[in-house]
Amino acid sequence: MEYKAIKGTRDFSPLQMQKRNYIFDTITKVYRSHGFLQIETPAMESLNTLMGKYGEEGDKLLFKILDSGMFLKPEEMQEFSSLFSDINDNNQTISINKATKMISEKGLRYDLTVPFARFVVNHRNDIVFPFKRFQIQPVWRADRPQKGRYREFYQCDADIIGSNSLMNEVELLQIINEVFSAFGLPIVIKLNNRKILSAFAELLGKADKITDLTVAIDKLDKIGLDNVINELQEKGFCKEDCEKISPLLNVKGSNEEKLLLLENIIGNIEIGRQGLEEIKYVLTKSNNADINNIELDITLARGLNYYTGAIVEVKALDMQMGSITGGGRYDNLTGIFGMPDVSGVGISFGADRIYDCLEEKGLFPKDIEVATKVLFINFGEKESDFCLHLATTLRKKGISCEIYPESAKLKKQMKYANDRHFPYCILVGEEEIKNSACVLKNMLTGEQETIAFDSLSEKLQ
Amino acid sequence: MEYKAIKGTRDFSPLQMQKRNYIFDTITKVYRSHGFLQIETPAMESLNTLMGKYGEEGDKLLFKILDSGMFLKPEEMQEFSSLFSDINDNNQTISINKATKMISEKGLRYDLTVPFARFVVNHRNDIVFPFKRFQIQPVWRADRPQKGRYREFYQCDADIIGSNSLMNEVELLQIINEVFSAFGLPIVIKLNNRKILSAFAELLGKADKITDLTVAIDKLDKIGLDNVINELQEKGFCKEDCEKISPLLNVKGSNEEKLLLLENIIGNIEIGRQGLEEIKYVLTKSNNADINNIELDITLARGLNYYTGAIVEVKALDMQMGSITGGGRYDNLTGIFGMPDVSGVGISFGADRIYDCLEEKGLFPKDIEVATKVLFINFGEKESDFCLHLATTLRKKGISCEIYPESAKLKKQMKYANDRHFPYCILVGEEEIKNSACVLKNMLTGEQETIAFDSLSEKLQ
Repeated sequence: MEYKAIKGTRDFSPLQMQKRNYIFDTITKVYRSHGFLQIETPAMESLNTLMGKYGEEGDKLLFKILDSGMFLKPEEMQEFSSLFSDINDNNQTISINKATKMISEKGLRYDLTVPFARFVVNHRNDIVFPFKRFQIQPVWRADRPQKGRYREFYQCDADIIGSNSLMNEVELLQIINEVFSAFGLPIVIKLNNRKILSAFAELLGKADKITDLTVAIDKLDKIGLDNVINELQEKGFCKEDCEKISPLLNVKGSNEEKLLLLENIIGNIEIGRQGLEEIKYVLTKSNNADINNIELDITLARGLNYYTGAIVEVKALDMQMGSITGGGRYDNLTGIFGMPDVSGVGISFGADRIYDCLEEKGLFPKDIEVATKVLFINFGEKESDFCLHLATTLRKKGISCEIYPESAKLKKQMKYANDRHFPYCILVGEEEIKNSACVLKNMLTGEQETIAFDSLSEKLQ
Repeated sequence: MEYKAIKGTRDFSPLQMQKRNYIFDTITKVYRSHGFLQIETPAMESLNTLMGKYGEEGDKLLFKILDSGMFLKPEEMQEFSSLFSDINDNNQTISINKATKMISEKGLRYDLTVPFARFVVNHRNDIVFPFKRFQIQPVWRADRPQKGRYREFYQCDADIIGSNSLMNEVELLQIINEVFSAFGLPIVIKLNNRKILSAFAELLGKADKITDLTVAIDKLDKIGLDNVINELQEKGFCKEDCEKISPLLNVKGSNEEKLLLLENIIGNIEIGRQGLEEIKYVLTKSNNADINNIELDITLARGLNYYTGAIVEVKALDMQMGSITGGGRYDNLTGIFGMPDVSGVGISFGADRIYDCLEEKGLFPKDIEVATKVLFINFGEKESDFCLHLATTLRKKGISCEIYPESAKLKKQMKYANDRHFPYCILVGEEEIKNSACVLKNMLTGEQETIAFDSLSEKLQ
């Protein structure tokens, strides 16, 4: 039998962990510097909490946990069984859902947003609003694994909940820029507002079809304008509608030029006017805060239906890579759990794609392979006893080190030092103990020097 | 409908996260300072990997994940159904296991040791041995939730695999002491060796009953000597056996006195002699390394059958609290996955119990509540625009800060500052902008002073 990590999930080696930690630490540091507070929620949530929040497709992609013990009572078998007996393509989803409900009441979280909304509702009396929270945890999706798409992956979310102020949008844009500037990765931030899209729907007299409209527009990047038009027509938009909308989807030029065009077309629709004002406010404030890489993109829709205001997406410049960060404002996310009228805005960094970008561009810090600084070569009982003390002294000064655990052949110990990328080895033999000095070997240059024990930590710091 | 975190799992608030991070960071720092490398493995593992590793009870406590999509084919229903039709107390476990297998092939990890063993076998060609790895991740057990027992909790493991040297045991004892000394929590380390327990079994001529013997002895702390004797007799040990073993279980005195007694009783049994030598070596080396809080405890058994050498357990002094850290040597853990003859030794810090100890003794650092250093009071558009720049400057100097997102009433903003435990507020009004100075308010003392923008970061650092 073969024992492996299951498809779509990954083991992380020490070097991969160093690189991932670098990403998480960078994001965490920026979040904290802006006053965001960390929370965590459990991996498992009740299916009541999870189901129906991600659309029918999302429900299918939830990992469900089999109830413990005797998960089905003998007397329930007939009912359970009947769900499978008359199964066909039409009722398959319904039958499977019913059967699942009988044997499973928990699932693994699908994202961090819905658990966060539940968290806010449960702890509303202990939370100081506006609540700025960040959360970095894995999520799970029962997707078909393929290149770049995993069943377990990390999300790095920050949200501000309980404040309508557009200052929050600006702060999140600042954070995006601070994070990617720390990574050294040039990006463009695409900005839109859900209200603009709503105005488009109103313009066509089809406010009720806002979801169909956004879902189609969302695909523009992938399938091109012609296919978007086809999809719109399939969904009941007429030729005239499409002619009205096409130039908007095709608009080029600076943010100012785009705003001018929009002003003319949707400026007298109330929701359009609001959307334009919000965008202008965010652009002006951002400009004040030296954020100059925002591109107004009125085709940005981000399928997620819960967005009600700003929509944001980040792309790495000159790279064939989808969105590496996204977010937006939602006016009623906690409403589904019984706490209405709380507005929030948030972003989520996609750690896996950022990892791939940094790898491809060689942007990880050069010294990331150095996990431990010093290896003490082991020459035997007496010498290693001595090194125990020396090692403790170095560690107290913040210098990581280890003693090779056996007095193996020097060649073997040196091979270990090279394979593990130690920058330094320390050799302490009988002679050295007598002289209170040791031999310090620089593994990069091969140079050796004799150095007094007392000067060792200073030299290595 | 009520939406809550499911029983036995927990949300972690910002303050709880600060405290937990303090624990994880302290342990991580010590692990790294000793050259341990971090890895992570997926939350889900194949049930082939997990089942049969934790005993029958453990198998029951695994969370199993329902297969995706149509988890049962209609033609399998009859077989599935039949498993429930003739169910009774005797075959319940077997039937449930068979039925589970038909609809589930994945489970959540139960500990970090078995996934680590699988990791080592899968990546054997990329690993530099001896491999010192650490891993801090949650594990899940479908236990009945009760006080102090959770269904989701973190383990903090370190293992050295691929080296027989007892230096590794000593290093792990050093690590234990360094971690708890960083916490300021006084502890005693209890040490035993599985070979001593094997020698006891041989002494009684019942080497085959070693598991029954250790399981019984393991309960000594909880149920007392008389009940242990009862259990031994139930398992087939005769009265004479129990009379031989009782004085050993009752032995008091210093480590030296205990060793002397053991020497007399099991010194001429080969495996006993080995065990005693190992213990003596570890005690002597530890003593050299200034570790003086080891107590030889020959009743320490730690139920886990895979231990073959040293067994270690840590207790907090003067506290009613079970073991807060444990570990031991295992000679063949990777053998179950097809890679025999690799010896390892490891420890696992119990983060939840350590948290409770530190909380009870008030040992968390005093400033742990301070998540963010400065709140800029928001007096309006112009002022907050100005603060945006000031805040960026402070952040670049490593000072965390935020601007209140709305120009709300001063009282409301001050209440937010107090509730969130900001140590400082900065007030910048029109006057202050003109004078390039701001008012810095110490929230602890209530003192206010006017300070030039230029001196601000220096003052706050």
